[in-house]
Amino acid sequence: MKTYSAAVKVTLRKGILDVQGKTVEQALHAIEFTAIERVRIGKFVEFDITAESEQEAKIMAEDACRKLIANPIMEDFSITLSEREQI
Amino acid sequence: MKTYSAAVKVTLRKGILDVQGKTVEQALHAIEFTAIERVRIGKFVEFDITAESEQEAKIMAEDACRKLIANPIMEDFSITLSEREQI
Repeated sequence: MKTYSAAVKVTLRKGILDVQGKTVEQALHAIEFTAIERVRIGKFVEFDITAESEQEAKIMAEDACRKLIANPIMEDFSITLSEREQI
Repeated sequence: MKTYSAAVKVTLRKGILDVQGKTVEQALHAIEFTAIERVRIGKFVEFDITAESEQEAKIMAEDACRKLIANPIMEDFSITLSEREQI
């Protein structure tokens, strides 16, 4: 068994209004960061997976994202896996 | 002036208890994802910056992260900049 590190970016789908992003954008403009626009806020989730192979780890991570970590109706996710050094 | 896309990962610093991550981990274990551990939840923020150069855009993005997007006492951030294709 090997341990893999997964890094998942969860972003709101295009066309879904990002209220939190809009609020942060307005706050940035209020403190003179007027060159910053189109702020979108998502989640960044990291975890370790123990699996027989990278392929198995990938399937499990995708399954976990679909079932719990992301909301597939409103959000997209992308997973980056890397083998974890033994510690 | 050019427009750059910034992608910022904001993560809780090591040693800071991640209550949200722990909760998600327990929920994953409850639905049989027992091979997943050490869940940490951060933010993933994307925005566009208009600046004269990549260097200027980078300085502005770092400044915005320090002042508003991240909490530098509890969080680390890393910024990836890329030049945006004209649309």
